Amino acid sequence: MQTIPSDFAGWMQAHQARVEAALDRALPGADIAPQRLHEAMRYAVLGGGKRIRPLLAYAAGEATDAPADRVDRIGAAVELIHVYSLVHDDLPCMDNDVLRRGKPTVHVQYDDATALLVGDSLQSLAFGVLAGAPVGDSAVLVDMVGRLATAAGSRGMAGGQAVDLASLGKQLSVPELEFMHVHKTGALIRASVLLGAQCGSALDAARMESLDRYAKCIGLAFQVVDDVLDATASTATLGKTAGKDADDNKPTYVSVLGVEAARKFAGQLLDDALTALDKVAGQGGRLAQLGRFIVTREF
Amino acid sequence: MQTIPSDFAGWMQAHQARVEAALDRALPGADIAPQRLHEAMRYAVLGGGKRIRPLLAYAAGEATDAPADRVDRIGAAVELIHVYSLVHDDLPCMDNDVLRRGKPTVHVQYDDATALLVGDSLQSLAFGVLAGAPVGDSAVLVDMVGRLATAAGSRGMAGGQAVDLASLGKQLSVPELEFMHVHKTGALIRASVLLGAQCGSALDAARMESLDRYAKCIGLAFQVVDDVLDATASTATLGKTAGKDADDNKPTYVSVLGVEAARKFAGQLLDDALTALDKVAGQGGRLAQLGRFIVTREF
Repeated sequence: MQTIPSDFAGWMQAHQARVEAALDRALPGADIAPQRLHEAMRYAVLGGGKRIRPLLAYAAGEATDAPADRVDRIGAAVELIHVYSLVHDDLPCMDNDVLRRGKPTVHVQYDDATALLVGDSLQSLAFGVLAGAPVGDSAVLVDMVGRLATAAGSRGMAGGQAVDLASLGKQLSVPELEFMHVHKTGALIRASVLLGAQCGSALDAARMESLDRYAKCIGLAFQVVDDVLDATASTATLGKTAGKDADDNKPTYVSVLGVEAARKFAGQLLDDALTALDKVAGQGGRLAQLGRFIVTREF
Repeated sequence: MQTIPSDFAGWMQAHQARVEAALDRALPGADIAPQRLHEAMRYAVLGGGKRIRPLLAYAAGEATDAPADRVDRIGAAVELIHVYSLVHDDLPCMDNDVLRRGKPTVHVQYDDATALLVGDSLQSLAFGVLAGAPVGDSAVLVDMVGRLATAAGSRGMAGGQAVDLASLGKQLSVPELEFMHVHKTGALIRASVLLGAQCGSALDAARMESLDRYAKCIGLAFQVVDDVLDATASTATLGKTAGKDADDNKPTYVSVLGVEAARKFAGQLLDDALTALDKVAGQGGRLAQLGRFIVTREF
């Protein structure tokens, strides 16, 4: 049973509520034309998910003394990119999944074309929301736009997804698997941390590098744990179809290392992440708690 | 037979070559992992298309005395958004088309999942390329990112596409048709003009509004002419399947007004665009030529 310090549980809830409100503000109302598209976008985004990426952005913002209201749009932007990727990944031509966050996937609830346009529109919205963030220094904001674009694109998340598709039915080596996950999941998680940190006072190069090291380790650990949970948890707990990786003959850390070694690897990554965090400053407390939560989570 | 002034033809060729080079630089090499995705992105983008949107950006840049090298990334960004929309629109769950720019569409040449990821990656790349534009004033650049995001998203191009899908088999009124096209095609064309203009010296509010009026009229005229060409030109001339709108029972300016009235409407829109342009300044010469080209084009 996972134990979460009560102050941290309260912090998570408060910041999940913050980003939910930011997402609600960012999404066009379902009364605005084209209504069905806007309704489907809201269906995809609101009222579900752990909001791990926004939480990482808020926690990194705290590490550089950024007020939370400066991070709200950053959290919303990274979550919009994440949700767009889920909507497209669930399409029949990709993973063909019917359940997500405990609800029918967008293409099941609406139709394939609408799901395609929902994903496309959420990606545009992410960059629009980011461009409106009250970061203060426009040059920093431009840098953040470039960072998010790289993390989302063919050299980041979408590229990892392409490798994932190409690897179905194949056995991958550990380095190949790491390449896939560092891109598919890691890139956006890393961007979430760095964008959050960029909302506050500038870090020197060494501290920024340590923060990046933390983010890389946590990003990979997140995916290793995801692989373990897919093999060990129930559909009801996950809110998405469990055991799907094995059914799809998809190489994972579990199929390559086995459950126990995968768990151990996630633990090592957490240790590395926490070691890197020690060098950032005294303010990394939430990032450490969040890292432990990500690795020990049960859903 | 369309007559193009020879100096204008030379200008078009030179600037088509400029944006082709900018796109080539922006796209990851096909030797970079994931190779197949990058190869497919290059297949989708390079070596085809009239590059109308980049040309509008260059012409608007000339109207505000922006050097062409400051507009290169703007032209590339709007073209990347346009190409991503074509790749997704051609998918089986949307228009299900097999020919584009005289070549098999991306999902035919590769597969549906790759086409989906190509479109997703091109959209990310567009924002990344824009964020790297040498515009000088970061606050202006941030404004441009927001403008492009709005033009591409659910209240712009993607929203128009949703209306288009919902209207299959229906008869639309002229205002409904205009709503669809102002979004589906008009929003990105308008953004191309305004982003190009923002690369140079700032226009006062009245001139910016006149330029926007030009862009709106040309954007709508572009789509009216597209509807006419779909009904009157050959597949070989268009490089895409002709007569598809009627086959798909899609409402167009031709199905609603008839070919002759649609042509006349495009001519009126051109007149309105040129009248608006008179108020911008003395530098709108290329925009006027380009407007005439868009309305009298035969492919």
